[in-house]
Amino acid sequence: MLPLPRFDLANLNPNCPQSIRAIRPALPVIDRLDEKWLAAAAALAERGRVLSHPNPSVGALIVRSDPVMSLSAVVVGRGWTQPGGRPHAEAAALEQAGQRAVGATLYVTLEPCAHVSERGPACADLVTKSGISRVIIGTCDPDPRTQGKGIARLEQAGIAVTLAHHKPSHDSLRGYLKQRNTGRPHVTLKLAMSLDGAIALRSGESRWITGPEARAHTHRERARADAILVGGGTLRSDNPRLDVRLPGLETRSPARFVLSRSAVPAGWQAIANPEEILALQDIQYLFIEGGAQTAAAFLKRDLVDRILLYRAPIIIGGGLPAIADFGLSDLTSAHGRWSLSDQRKLGNDTLEIYERTPCLPA
Amino acid sequence: MLPLPRFDLANLNPNCPQSIRAIRPALPVIDRLDEKWLAAAAALAERGRVLSHPNPSVGALIVRSDPVMSLSAVVVGRGWTQPGGRPHAEAAALEQAGQRAVGATLYVTLEPCAHVSERGPACADLVTKSGISRVIIGTCDPDPRTQGKGIARLEQAGIAVTLAHHKPSHDSLRGYLKQRNTGRPHVTLKLAMSLDGAIALRSGESRWITGPEARAHTHRERARADAILVGGGTLRSDNPRLDVRLPGLETRSPARFVLSRSAVPAGWQAIANPEEILALQDIQYLFIEGGAQTAAAFLKRDLVDRILLYRAPIIIGGGLPAIADFGLSDLTSAHGRWSLSDQRKLGNDTLEIYERTPCLPA
Repeated sequence: MLPLPRFDLANLNPNCPQSIRAIRPALPVIDRLDEKWLAAAAALAERGRVLSHPNPSVGALIVRSDPVMSLSAVVVGRGWTQPGGRPHAEAAALEQAGQRAVGATLYVTLEPCAHVSERGPACADLVTKSGISRVIIGTCDPDPRTQGKGIARLEQAGIAVTLAHHKPSHDSLRGYLKQRNTGRPHVTLKLAMSLDGAIALRSGESRWITGPEARAHTHRERARADAILVGGGTLRSDNPRLDVRLPGLETRSPARFVLSRSAVPAGWQAIANPEEILALQDIQYLFIEGGAQTAAAFLKRDLVDRILLYRAPIIIGGGLPAIADFGLSDLTSAHGRWSLSDQRKLGNDTLEIYERTPCLPA
Repeated sequence: MLPLPRFDLANLNPNCPQSIRAIRPALPVIDRLDEKWLAAAAALAERGRVLSHPNPSVGALIVRSDPVMSLSAVVVGRGWTQPGGRPHAEAAALEQAGQRAVGATLYVTLEPCAHVSERGPACADLVTKSGISRVIIGTCDPDPRTQGKGIARLEQAGIAVTLAHHKPSHDSLRGYLKQRNTGRPHVTLKLAMSLDGAIALRSGESRWITGPEARAHTHRERARADAILVGGGTLRSDNPRLDVRLPGLETRSPARFVLSRSAVPAGWQAIANPEEILALQDIQYLFIEGGAQTAAAFLKRDLVDRILLYRAPIIIGGGLPAIADFGLSDLTSAHGRWSLSDQRKLGNDTLEIYERTPCLPA
């Protein structure tokens, strides 16, 4: 894996109210062990992705020193946001820990909520009552009902709180933070192409460019999205199913959207232009699968956050290009917009993940 | 670095006469230490690349046990083919070793020559007289004047000879072996493109797609070629210098060819079609730099051995494609032709090296 792009910590949490930010160091120091536990919590959060809808998927770990070997740590509670959004991750982890939470540390990817709802108590109150003595938080919650109030309530109860500005936590909440901060979903553009950037022969033949490993990976990425979108042309010509065909994940197919002004078939919803994703407040993660005009329409409006670039080691020559003209005026303005954040081999193919730069907080 | 593509050892040395191959194991075992010394010899050979013209650039190392610490090895001679082709690598290494060659091991990337010429003695004779007791050879010499005769002469003199079928040795001699075995140069196609496979904006603007590190790497690759070729369109529109502008390598600019039926400017030579490279017997390494029609013309005739793919993390959208139509009829026939053999970051850009598969010997 390549080094991650530089991440501007100062900009990481503009969600936090100024009052909270003023009392936090710009670069809070968490040690490597805290970093590791928090990363483990972020990995747990992946289990709730999409399923936690309408809530963000949060991960929580409760860790205390081992009662026998005092220098060792032991995990006494693990939780992630449950399907439908409740219980929250902290509630699930505290339930598991029970009395063992007393004096323990809670690692949680998102600031514990400060609002009581009819669906459950405020996590900040649960933590306060649990006997937890220390809380390490990955990132602030921009929900106006929490937004620093969760941290404040914990501190008022005498709990030591560290806000870690933690990139893996932030990354695990990208869709939620994007919606809260900008009012639109986090958008991934998927491209599957030859080495020379073609997504099909001139004749339209496109099955298959990439191999089964890359296609399976795409299905996994579909299962991680709330909605999937293609262009009207792709819908008419390919009539794609866009479902998830991985064993055990067949029920995880996302909602299907099409960028089209025409009537669309049953099972599809239409948006007439890319800006309409601002109305999709229920959707945290949008996955765009083509074609070239649709990709260009979203790129033109700077509405793509992440590109999944699957490439097969083949050369097509004069094939159909992956991305249509979106009005780029000069080469200089094309530079500096994308950073390679990860790459791997998938069978004979390669996957590269590019993220929009600068790495804005959401 | 990714794992190298599978290499068919059985096909590695079809140059060796059947008589020699019959007495060699199909998969000769050389130990890791021998492998290491031979790889060091192959690295030495890089110093003579192009400069050794008209001879192949060979590397040689003479290694013996340390007279003081008998379990350690000490290098007593190093050589590579000198500018103009003489002295040969073995002669240079033996000259350096002098009496210390007695009882030592010679590692040499190519079978020592068996023919006396007016320009110097046969290396096989030099080795025989030197007192060398063991020779590890990277690959056979397909030159009909040697072609197993070098090995035979060494063995007749009682020297233990191992023919290692050694990929780094073979790779260091690609241009020479390609000429000997197929009568044409080894051909590298260089492409510099955006993530979506464009080599320029629709307007033709192409400066710059890649950054200074990638462009410097291209200049280094030019210095490793005997000749460079562009298409007539590229010559007319860009009027490229195609020279080497790296400090200390300014004199290493290769001969310049253009694929064109028209008259060409002074300092350029024309070939009317790709097959004419079969007449370029003096050229071991040909470097093709564009444009899309020229790339397609060589790909169509299967005359490309290696692709250097420089990619910048930019998206152009509707730009000029890197490779024009070369008549690919279906996707199935596009697969299996190329293997990723190496990759690296160059500043913000990535370089991938693809090699034609199956890895034929030359």
